[in-house]
This record gives sequence, C-alpha cells and structure tokens, in this order.
Amino acid sequence: MENFDFYSPTHFVFGEDRENECGELVKKLGAKKILIHYGSGSAVKSGLLGRVKDSLDKAGVAYAELGGVKPNPRDTLVYQGIELCKKEGVELILAVGGGSVIDSSKAIAAGVCYDGDFWDFYCGKAEIKKALPVASVLTIAAAGSEGSPSSVITKEDGMVKRGTGSDLIRPVFSILDPKLTCTLPAYQTACGATDIMAHVFERYFTNTDEVEITDRLCEAVLLTMIKETPRAIAQPDNYQARANIMWAGTVAHNDIVGVGRSQDWNSHGIEHELSGLYDCAHGAGLAVVMPAWMEFVHKHNCMRFAQMATRVFGCQMNFEGPEKTAMEGIRCFRRFLHEIGMPINFEELGAKEEDIPALADNMKINGTRDGFVKLTRDDVCEILKIAAHAKL
Amino acid sequence: MENFDFYSPTHFVFGEDRENECGELVKKLGAKKILIHYGSGSAVKSGLLGRVKDSLDKAGVAYAELGGVKPNPRDTLVYQGIELCKKEGVELILAVGGGSVIDSSKAIAAGVCYDGDFWDFYCGKAEIKKALPVASVLTIAAAGSEGSPSSVITKEDGMVKRGTGSDLIRPVFSILDPKLTCTLPAYQTACGATDIMAHVFERYFTNTDEVEITDRLCEAVLLTMIKETPRAIAQPDNYQARANIMWAGTVAHNDIVGVGRSQDWNSHGIEHELSGLYDCAHGAGLAVVMPAWMEFVHKHNCMRFAQMATRVFGCQMNFEGPEKTAMEGIRCFRRFLHEIGMPINFEELGAKEEDIPALADNMKINGTRDGFVKLTRDDVCEILKIAAHAKL
Repeated sequence: MENFDFYSPTHFVFGEDRENECGELVKKLGAKKILIHYGSGSAVKSGLLGRVKDSLDKAGVAYAELGGVKPNPRDTLVYQGIELCKKEGVELILAVGGGSVIDSSKAIAAGVCYDGDFWDFYCGKAEIKKALPVASVLTIAAAGSEGSPSSVITKEDGMVKRGTGSDLIRPVFSILDPKLTCTLPAYQTACGATDIMAHVFERYFTNTDEVEITDRLCEAVLLTMIKETPRAIAQPDNYQARANIMWAGTVAHNDIVGVGRSQDWNSHGIEHELSGLYDCAHGAGLAVVMPAWMEFVHKHNCMRFAQMATRVFGCQMNFEGPEKTAMEGIRCFRRFLHEIGMPINFEELGAKEEDIPALADNMKINGTRDGFVKLTRDDVCEILKIAAHAKL
Repeated sequence: MENFDFYSPTHFVFGEDRENECGELVKKLGAKKILIHYGSGSAVKSGLLGRVKDSLDKAGVAYAELGGVKPNPRDTLVYQGIELCKKEGVELILAVGGGSVIDSSKAIAAGVCYDGDFWDFYCGKAEIKKALPVASVLTIAAAGSEGSPSSVITKEDGMVKRGTGSDLIRPVFSILDPKLTCTLPAYQTACGATDIMAHVFERYFTNTDEVEITDRLCEAVLLTMIKETPRAIAQPDNYQARANIMWAGTVAHNDIVGVGRSQDWNSHGIEHELSGLYDCAHGAGLAVVMPAWMEFVHKHNCMRFAQMATRVFGCQMNFEGPEKTAMEGIRCFRRFLHEIGMPINFEELGAKEEDIPALADNMKINGTRDGFVKLTRDDVCEILKIAAHAKL
C-alpha cells in the first residue's frame, strides 16, 4: 500500500426532504448572501428551487440566482457567475443540480477569489489557493462531485473539456435526497450509474499490489450498482433503489475506494474527448469507451480482470485459462450496460469512426496519464476502434 | 434506508514514517502548546515518543506530557490530565498510542472545557458542548477511536465502564503508520482484529431492510480482516497485512459501514461488563461474547445470518435449510477467532460462570439498547451461558 492522505470533510445530509434544512445549514456557516446556481428549468418546475428559497428565507439568508448550466458545463456561464458574485458580494455558492451544476459552482467559487482568468486552473497554469465555500443540493446520482475536490469545465471555443482539483472546492455540505432522483428518465439514470461504476473501475485497475481493503470496497460499490440500477430503471419511484445508488455514487468518488494505490483515469480522459466533440452524455460515452479500454489492457494483468469477473460479475473462475474469465467479465460488464439501456458502440452513441484520428490527437494534446497502462496515440486509436465496432 | 448524516472530517495521514509530520500538522492548526498523552513505556522504548517530540521541536510547538494510560483507561488519570492542561495552558491534546490513549485524550479534551465533573458526559448527565482539539498518532489497529466521535472510560471506583460521543472530540488529524504495529504481539494483534470485526458486525445486524450499499461495505471490511489477520499473525513484520488491517480498523468505525439503518451494540455492552469486572482485553471479551450473541439472536433473521455465512465466510447456501447455513456461519466465525488465538469461552477468558448474575445485573443498570433484538436481563444471562460453555 502506498502512503496516502484521506480527507473527506464534507457534511453529507442524506434522506427524504432534507433539502428543507439547507437554510439552517448555510446560516450555521455564517454566510449572509449566497448564489443559488442551477441548470435547466427542471429544478424550477419540480418545485425544488422554491423549497430551497423558502428554507433560505426562513433562515434569513439572502441570495442571488444564476440558472442555465448545461451538461458539460461551459466556461461562458462561469465567467457570468464570477461577475455576478463579485457584484453581489456573495459569500457561498449553493449548487442545486447534478455534477455539471456543482462543477460550474466550484469553478465560480475559485474564480471569484482569483485575479486572473479562472481557466488557468483548468489548463494547468495556476493552482487554486483560495475559494468561496461551495455547498450542494444534489439532484442526480452520477458525478460524485458532491463529495469530491474536482471539477470539469468545457471551453465553448473549441469545446475543450478540462478538469482541476483542490480541497478548497470540496463542498462543505451536500444534501442528498434520493426522492429528487425518482423523476429522472431511465436514460439519465443509466448514464449516472455508468459514471459511478466508471469512477470505481478507474480506481480498481491499479499496479499497486496487496491493497485488499480498497479492492473489496470497490467491489462493494460495484455489486450494489449491479443490483440496484436495473431496479431503479424498472421502478423509477423505488426510493430504496434510488437511495442505494445515490449513496454509492458519493462513496464511489470521495476516494474512500481509491486510497493507497495508483489509479488509471485514461477511460475518463478518452471519454472527455467524445463528449467534448459530440456533446453526448458523459455516462453514455463511458459505456462505449470503458469496456473497450478493458479489452485493450486486460492482458497487462489478467488475474485482476479475472478477480473482477468472479467477485463482481459472479463468473466461474476458469483455472486453466484465467484470460477466458477476464474476457468473460468484460463481456458481462458490456451486457449489463446494454441491459440498462446504454450505447455500447459508436453507432449507438452517434459517434463516427472517421473522427478517431482527431479524437486521438486531442487526447495527445491533453496527455495520457500514467496508470494501469500508459497509452500512446496509437493505443488510443486502437481502443476507439474496439469501441466503434463493439458487439454483445 | 433511514435518513442519516455522515460527517467524518478527520484528516487521515497514512503510511510509513508519517509520524514525523506531526509537528507541521499541529503547527498548521495554530496550537502553540499541546499535551502529549501516552500509555506505558512502549512508546518511549520504541523511540516513537522521541520522534514525535523531535517533530514538534522542529515545528516550534511546546508540549507538556502525561503517560500512564492503562487498557480500559481510568477516570483518575483523566482528572490529572485535565488539571495539567489547565495549569499549562494546553491548546490541543496529541494522543500517542491506541484506543485507550485516544479515548483518555478525548475525555481530557472535553473535561478541560467544562466546569463540572467530566464523568457527567459518561453517565448521561451532560452533553459535550466544547472541547480542545484532539489529534492522534495511532499505534494499534483496533478501537477505531482515531476516526470516531466516541470515547469509553472506566471509573476506578467500582470498575464501571461507560461511553460518550460528540463530533467535538473527533480527532482533527490521525497519523496511521502501519510499521508502528509490526511490533505488536500476536495476542494484541488478534484482540485488535476482533474489535474491528465486532465494530462491523454491530452495524451488520440491523432491522432496516434494503441497505445493500452498507451491507456490501461491511462485508468488504470483514473479508479483508479474514484475509489479512492470519497473515499479520504468521508474519508480524508484513507491512502490507498490517497496512490493510490498520485502514480497515478506521473504516470499520468512522460509520461509513453503518449509515442509513439501525445498529445493535449489545455485544459491546455485554463485553464492557466482562472487561470491567475482569480487566480482560476488550477484543478477547468480544471473541467470547459475540458468537454467543449471534447464536442467541440468529432466529430473529436467519436469512441475514445466512447472508453473512455465504458472503463473508464463503459457506454454501443450504436452500432447504437457511438456518443451517446461518449456524454454519457463526461456527466459522468462532473457528476463525480460535485460529487467530482468541479465547472462545469463559475458561479460556478467565471468567467465571457464577459471576453471570452480577454481570447481567450491571448490564441492567447500564440498560440494554434497542437494536437487532432488544435484550432482557434473562436474555443477557442466556447469552453469557452460551459464551461460558462455547466449543468449536
């Protein structure tokens, strides 16, 4: 096990109707004026935004508002948010929405306290040294941004997607009411579930041996997702299924399932190029990329894939041919993704094979991180080709 | 799933030699004078205390010292600690040791900020409203006190053992260096492992249905302990085994494996009477009590015990007689405890059957908490009788 720091100070406030506590939670933190940041009209239509405002009013907390965050949140809105916060003297950003809204809020929180261009944090030119506190009321289980120190923003000019991270932009509190996710369409539910599973797999495929505790915690989240996702899709109102998925999504990304070893975020990296270019849902892109990445790298450590196959997907171990078990596990994963309604190849995603060289070029600019297997540009092309033609 | 709050703000600093960072960590928190609280001479002999002091000296942090914490830490030393802190103007308590030292430090931290008798917090007369910050350098994987809000103290007069809890006494940081545990004798290693597994089981046996994520996380920790404990006992210097156990011990008790449902702490309650009366190791007491409690309550929910048997101990499910699988799981647990060198009955523990009525009477005073099964005095006697005569 490698040395590590684990620090997850976010106060998670989990359960039915707990968004009604947000006013008191903000007040306790001493913020007198906040920005409510949200996405499309659905938070307004569902009445959630109204309840949040009621709660803030009751607690005597003033607020400005900024809606309009899109999936793959844009830099343009972040600039607007920064300006608004400065003008209004905002002391805390309350994200009401999913990962995109929270990521956008984190960017604003850091940008307000920085004299330069906030994009500096995303293109590696500067490090976040100060930020307004961020809090969230989560409406979709997926990104894990409610408990993570990271944020991903898309630059509208060129649709370039980049990420940053700092403990200073970790939410101080996050309210998780599973009931809010019961109205999510099946497709978005499945996209979220895929993202959650990807966050675990990126931590599962490691070159650090003998970290049994982290392996087992990863498997715990994956087994939960395999049980609960089809249930939530078949019965959208099933509170228990939604609750399990929502908490699994947080656990998957506050790093409790990743400590003490190397990780591999190349699948996320490749997917960022796909959703950057096609503006597809992040989870859908991952469903196409991740099994392809697995196929491409599995020979690097067949036994680890065989472990996944047996412990997570319940495959029988083939002791004469562990590689067969490894491949069977990857097939099970792809079949699972198909069953929950995810695309599994380029055609189903709406991607084009002829774009592969351009996608790989972008990836090259972005850089392929070390990890389970370090990838060259050719490797990325190869993975995308597997993804393009994947079948059940 | 029930509504819950999860808040674990402790900064965990994990890995080899990381105790050398404690000076800088204390300095960052702004404390200028601290109390180093420790146990027997082993922290002195091993050189650990010297390294901690060097680190504090380098960071320019002044300190007072108080050693002598015993297992089942006593109120008498807590009173001394409180007086010393007041006299010396201490701003933070640094526990260097195991659960007993950390629990004693927590009691001092709360006592310093309270005008009355600190015991009020432990006998339910008062609630902790303010406390000095507590930090720790952990030397044994067991109690989980390094990441928990709880503390257990024994009143020397009558050897009464009582607990309290508050987020205010959660360690602000905890340094976990697995190497420090490599010198632990096999018996203490096994006692610690038993305590860790008990912390999980007390959360596993719940009456709240459909909390798959918490079930799976519990099982993850248990599976890790079953793999790593015999390895650490056979090869005391095995850093990887020690590291897995140490982190499992923290995860087992910061409540990440317990949220969203009812818990049952009656085994811990019954054991506190045993170690209160006989001054035996807490883990050893648990090894005798816990399987007996399981046998007594298993019919309340056979399928849950069958789940433990199959998922944790790898038993084959007997679909015609789930109760048989349930009992087989309990037998596996007892066999495991015996194999790691733990006592499994009164004789091996050094307890006496004739004390059962007195033990149950104390338990009555203390009260049996609701939980998986609410226990009467007769039930406690019955459990202790099973424990007295248990065999493999």
